[in-house]
Amino acid sequence: MNQHMHPVPLDKAYRLLNHGPTVLVSARHDGTSNVMAAAWACALDFAPARLTVVLDKGASTRQLVERSGRFVIQVPTVAQIGLTFQVGHRSLLDDPEKLDNSGVELFDMPGHDLPFVTGCSAWLACRVIPEPHNQQSYDLFIAEIEAAWSDTRVFRDGHWHFETADPALRSLHYVAGGRFYAIGEALDTGPGKTG
Amino acid sequence: MNQHMHPVPLDKAYRLLNHGPTVLVSARHDGTSNVMAAAWACALDFAPARLTVVLDKGASTRQLVERSGRFVIQVPTVAQIGLTFQVGHRSLLDDPEKLDNSGVELFDMPGHDLPFVTGCSAWLACRVIPEPHNQQSYDLFIAEIEAAWSDTRVFRDGHWHFETADPALRSLHYVAGGRFYAIGEALDTGPGKTG
Repeated sequence: MNQHMHPVPLDKAYRLLNHGPTVLVSARHDGTSNVMAAAWACALDFAPARLTVVLDKGASTRQLVERSGRFVIQVPTVAQIGLTFQVGHRSLLDDPEKLDNSGVELFDMPGHDLPFVTGCSAWLACRVIPEPHNQQSYDLFIAEIEAAWSDTRVFRDGHWHFETADPALRSLHYVAGGRFYAIGEALDTGPGKTG
Repeated sequence: MNQHMHPVPLDKAYRLLNHGPTVLVSARHDGTSNVMAAAWACALDFAPARLTVVLDKGASTRQLVERSGRFVIQVPTVAQIGLTFQVGHRSLLDDPEKLDNSGVELFDMPGHDLPFVTGCSAWLACRVIPEPHNQQSYDLFIAEIEAAWSDTRVFRDGHWHFETADPALRSLHYVAGGRFYAIGEALDTGPGKTG
């Protein structure tokens, strides 16, 4: 936890994901923690705050999610591009030191038995809503967001401030083959501006 | 259809959505067509190519999707920011001329009884996989992508080329309150680049 990390009201938590960033999924069970990257995470509802995330059956993190029923979705930054790629391409099965080797540092939040990744711009503590058919047939997990926080240097008062924050705090948007895009220019519109 | 629109192989279709753009959802039933904006659309599987999209019970487009079992997901561009905001905030129920008033022009693709929106950078023709529990409880629709196309000026050979294409072709990423972000800078990483 750092001095810039502050709670986000749950009815604004969807805004942390609304622009479609690639995320990190972390989970812990019985003393084992893991972190993976996921491009397929998406807001699902405002209130109760919910999201979906696709967790492949081969992912070690999925086992921890299934066993603990909980996980954290966090939004990594441009400064974490190497870490994000590494946790997406290394497996805890092949590399027991995956987290250290990927440059991941974890921290705890009081009241949450979950591993949080240092240096992200947002964190969403989630509880799985069991939907066995979705999980088995589609690798699709539905979860309720129980708490959310942001780094207020880049998300505060319910809005991202990428256009004024350090560019190293921008979100990452993965495509394939090691290619990410950073989020770009802010564009405003509305009834008076659209013609 | 325009001269730049070419098919995308289905096993690469997820890449059209992987970076998390806000999309337009269009559908047609019994001669009525509609288009809405959706920030909550997400890839679900590579093969078969599948996606999820959240369609609120109040959305007229949802009724057309439920009746026809089909829809198009398309990726709008920075040049279409006004259109994207308008179709997300006007309802066909209140404004029967919504599409004209929002600046939407539709075109047909042979073999697909679906309304395609002119000027987008990508189009995915989808067939609903009926999952009544998800649709009723979560407004969550799962669909198979049956065909996909891109504007080759900005997506070709399985990759986006935002960094070299006209900036007006960049994707839009909505947050709230009329605020979008355009996709930004390309960043490459990989085993040799991450340290």
